[in-house]
Amino acid sequence: MSVAMFEPEPSKASKGKMIGVGTGPGDPELLTLKAVRTIENADVVAFFCKKGSTGNGRGIVENFIRPGTLEMPLVYPVTVESDKNGDDYRGAIANFFDQCASDIAVHLDAGRNVAVLSEGDPLFYGSYMHLHLRLAPSYPAEVVAGITAMSGCWSMTGLPLVQGDDILSVLPGTLAEETLTERLSGTDGAVIMKVGRNLPKIRRALERAGKLQSALYVERGTMENGHAMSLVEHDGSPAPYFSLVLVPGWKDRPSGGDAA
Amino acid sequence: MSVAMFEPEPSKASKGKMIGVGTGPGDPELLTLKAVRTIENADVVAFFCKKGSTGNGRGIVENFIRPGTLEMPLVYPVTVESDKNGDDYRGAIANFFDQCASDIAVHLDAGRNVAVLSEGDPLFYGSYMHLHLRLAPSYPAEVVAGITAMSGCWSMTGLPLVQGDDILSVLPGTLAEETLTERLSGTDGAVIMKVGRNLPKIRRALERAGKLQSALYVERGTMENGHAMSLVEHDGSPAPYFSLVLVPGWKDRPSGGDAA
Repeated sequence: MSVAMFEPEPSKASKGKMIGVGTGPGDPELLTLKAVRTIENADVVAFFCKKGSTGNGRGIVENFIRPGTLEMPLVYPVTVESDKNGDDYRGAIANFFDQCASDIAVHLDAGRNVAVLSEGDPLFYGSYMHLHLRLAPSYPAEVVAGITAMSGCWSMTGLPLVQGDDILSVLPGTLAEETLTERLSGTDGAVIMKVGRNLPKIRRALERAGKLQSALYVERGTMENGHAMSLVEHDGSPAPYFSLVLVPGWKDRPSGGDAA
Repeated sequence: MSVAMFEPEPSKASKGKMIGVGTGPGDPELLTLKAVRTIENADVVAFFCKKGSTGNGRGIVENFIRPGTLEMPLVYPVTVESDKNGDDYRGAIANFFDQCASDIAVHLDAGRNVAVLSEGDPLFYGSYMHLHLRLAPSYPAEVVAGITAMSGCWSMTGLPLVQGDDILSVLPGTLAEETLTERLSGTDGAVIMKVGRNLPKIRRALERAGKLQSALYVERGTMENGHAMSLVEHDGSPAPYFSLVLVPGWKDRPSGGDAA
């Protein structure tokens, strides 16, 4: 494997550039200077969204899109009700990304720069990476890092997550209870993503791992009406998509003190 | 445990606020809008550094510090040669953070806002958290999330790290070879921090875990003269402090394609 980064091939020179732009976790002030500049200078701003919505990424950057910029919604073809492990879903989503890549390529071939918005960070569980894999071999492509949702959440709560030689595990809440319990037992700090309907299972796994007392539940971190609470105090009602569970590491603190 | 976040106690009202400000991984354009505003408005800008240096965080934000702003270097008392697991080191570093907190408290008591710079993200392996634990119970405190070094590095290399239900493990390179091997075998994506002199051990652990071929070595990511290479191509010479190893997850890709 070789990594050719900063020097596009000569054949890419007259083409437009695709730029994956991290929009951060929700607060527009958590955009980077580079994200703002990239969006302001883009010929086309593309963004993933569900049918009937313009998506969170588009909302975050709204004030930085120049009037007259071409906007390009990339509308997901499937709903959350689909079985995401089924072949139908996989096929539909692969076709969708193929089509998005092909639509974006039309602009790139015409020499237009395309900013693709990505909530959080583009290469950290983001849809953008599917376009990057398809287009970066043939077109100039760049990624502008964004503040991740987890970083927004632990900053909002002021919870020191990991330090020194701590291990941090980022775990999807979709894992089986046994696996979650085992992973939580064997790590220092943890971030549990994809909470939603998995919250009761996550809570049981944390209890079995002896870490329920220190776990924080964060909903819509850094967004308006975002809030956090100790997970033991949560009433168990369904959690929205934009929620996370944070488990601080720091079992061994040279400084003394208490994490929260 | 209760989480009191947005409402400082009445007694804190007339005091200055401490704000931990993430400066990101190196490129000043990866500062957030909020970081820039906070630094521009601060009465005091504090930053950790080694003796004889002003530190990387101070360099990153240099152009945003207003003339006349009080600068407050927090100079680490110990060198990298110390045994970091020894009681002497732990005692010295705890005393150092106590002294820093006490010095900052003088400004806060006088009603001055103090921005404490933190490379990367303040609550993710950052020194700032030691001040937060000491001062946030008594003073208004806020954390401005920053782009982590790992995020800067995978963005620079265009390496999709994790997607879907992948597990990500953040591992310190200081772990024993056996532990590293086991952790690398049992995860999808991985980020190995604290590479430095641990590079040969990390390489052996990756080889034993069957993941050496896909691992990337990144040095000084997003900084000037930053670069990346496939780890198998690295000549084994000592790695600097600002280096990371990235191992992509994505063993199971609905989209097909290849990560790098």
